[in-house]
Amino acid sequence: MRTVWWSKNRVKLIDQTKLPFKTEVLEFRDYRKLARAIKEMRLRGAPAIGVATALGIALGINHSKASSFRELSKELDRTIKTFQGTRPTAVNLFWACRRMKKKFRENRGKSPKEIKRILVQEAKRITQEDIDCCKRIGELGASLIKKGDSILTHCNAGALATAGYGTALGVIKKAHEEGKRIKVFIDETRPRLQGARLTTWELKREGIPFTLITDNMAGYFMKKKEIDLVIVGADRIAGNGDVANKIGTYPLAVLAKEHKIPFYVAAPTSTIDLRLPSGNRIPIEERNTREVTHMGGRALVPKGTKAANPAFDLTPNRYIKAIITEKGIARRPYRQSLRKICGW
Amino acid sequence: MRTVWWSKNRVKLIDQTKLPFKTEVLEFRDYRKLARAIKEMRLRGAPAIGVATALGIALGINHSKASSFRELSKELDRTIKTFQGTRPTAVNLFWACRRMKKKFRENRGKSPKEIKRILVQEAKRITQEDIDCCKRIGELGASLIKKGDSILTHCNAGALATAGYGTALGVIKKAHEEGKRIKVFIDETRPRLQGARLTTWELKREGIPFTLITDNMAGYFMKKKEIDLVIVGADRIAGNGDVANKIGTYPLAVLAKEHKIPFYVAAPTSTIDLRLPSGNRIPIEERNTREVTHMGGRALVPKGTKAANPAFDLTPNRYIKAIITEKGIARRPYRQSLRKICGW
Repeated sequence: MRTVWWSKNRVKLIDQTKLPFKTEVLEFRDYRKLARAIKEMRLRGAPAIGVATALGIALGINHSKASSFRELSKELDRTIKTFQGTRPTAVNLFWACRRMKKKFRENRGKSPKEIKRILVQEAKRITQEDIDCCKRIGELGASLIKKGDSILTHCNAGALATAGYGTALGVIKKAHEEGKRIKVFIDETRPRLQGARLTTWELKREGIPFTLITDNMAGYFMKKKEIDLVIVGADRIAGNGDVANKIGTYPLAVLAKEHKIPFYVAAPTSTIDLRLPSGNRIPIEERNTREVTHMGGRALVPKGTKAANPAFDLTPNRYIKAIITEKGIARRPYRQSLRKICGW
Repeated sequence: MRTVWWSKNRVKLIDQTKLPFKTEVLEFRDYRKLARAIKEMRLRGAPAIGVATALGIALGINHSKASSFRELSKELDRTIKTFQGTRPTAVNLFWACRRMKKKFRENRGKSPKEIKRILVQEAKRITQEDIDCCKRIGELGASLIKKGDSILTHCNAGALATAGYGTALGVIKKAHEEGKRIKVFIDETRPRLQGARLTTWELKREGIPFTLITDNMAGYFMKKKEIDLVIVGADRIAGNGDVANKIGTYPLAVLAKEHKIPFYVAAPTSTIDLRLPSGNRIPIEERNTREVTHMGGRALVPKGTKAANPAFDLTPNRYIKAIITEKGIARRPYRQSLRKICGW
């Protein structure tokens, strides 16, 4: 299953706001429209946002009418700026911008036509690399899963959050493929219900048994000893191992600690932001509070109700048992282990 | 504001499934229909369920055609059994049954007509006592609130959860009346959104400033030091101070402990079940999973999705800083303090 991909000079993606009821593929020729789709969360998940950004930059450059390297360079900066204005927390977006810009600079002097070809190729490579990363994360992570484990996951860190396969769900899928007879608890993940809409949809396709719960039920099932471990994705990991992820992740980490249940994070190294010494500097996106007060266009609450809608929270490194990346499993102290894994 | 009351040989109540959009009053002549309304959560909240049960028993007896004490006694048992089959967790229901039965027995030998009058009077007294209890809980509890405190509450422990005024919201209302300039965070409380629908509606009427959040956001705001204390109601309190309350209460207690924030429970003594040595024996109601998978008749999830729906969870006594009752504030060790308060 593919989430976002390059096809005949266009970028295509599955509209995740329509799932699980309709599998609708959107086509983009205009990178600005793709950027808007990211903002509207038609595609979400940090690795998927990174890939879509790389493909979007290639799209912008590929359709550019610029006739010189200088003009193309300006076009690139505009394109990058547009994507950087979409979602502030997922660092993969900024990583993809840097990587595309680096490739562009390395090819200074080549013709615009040649550079276009190279950037499209680079974006396609980033797409494939993301899938390969997920598969490797799955393999490494599955070694942490025991036969019969009951696993809690939050939000969607699956194929839909990446170019394909998934991070936290990659681990779950691989453990399932290995015949470990796992069971999964899926947090519905308010306000946008990515768990209820997307993770259920993915696990159903894979034939992995699961139970959907509301976010506030995790403690109940941990206390009943029905959950053996927690595994989630990440939107940004600071140099010390602090993790920003979907709102509601931090309470799960606290509950896991209270119940002595291991709490794992699975993410590609492109999610690691070594320049940030701690998670406190990770910008947390605040989204429209209508996501909380309305559902499917219908108000849930009295008119004029004030609400809050931080889209992510921060889990301090001390709650995290291990961070599973495609280059290895990092453990405390993360300042050392993450640097080693990233080759810094 | 009244939630449930006796009026001209009928029981009336506000249909809480219609709030906040419609204030519809339902009228009952048939106690079985009232019992069904409790099961469907048209009225909910442990103290309100207790009051509705007392009024419902009076309703059943009052309309009975029994011509002897013996027949009336059978009728009473049938009525009580019907109410006892509605919701298993809220102990106030069983408390109300015992109290009505006691009053009935005390009047053995009187004419059916006289007994009917006495039981209606007793149910009305229970209604008024509940309001008085809440006001006293409010007064006692407000002493724990400091000027400018930011208070998190879960579900609805307000006027709508009682005959009037409320328990946890009674404390909040009283602190507000005393000019303490408090602010409130309201958990939306999935799956039935009592926080989003009912607590917002009540606080808006009172002019108390509040912010609605999804259940999974509480940890984020505690970590940002934006919450000074948590106060919730209770559906049943065991002899050792373990508290069963709306699903999602326990994770808040764990988070409060982690952030060194006091966690208070406010409830009338009719919610205390001294016969239970610990909370482990409190029956936890499992409700239809459609409450999780659907909203307003619309599916949120892929067809055939398996879900869980425990309606309550259990908070062990060690997480609870104090239990505020109408007869005093109980503190650890609760086994002693609760007995003293209940006069055992």
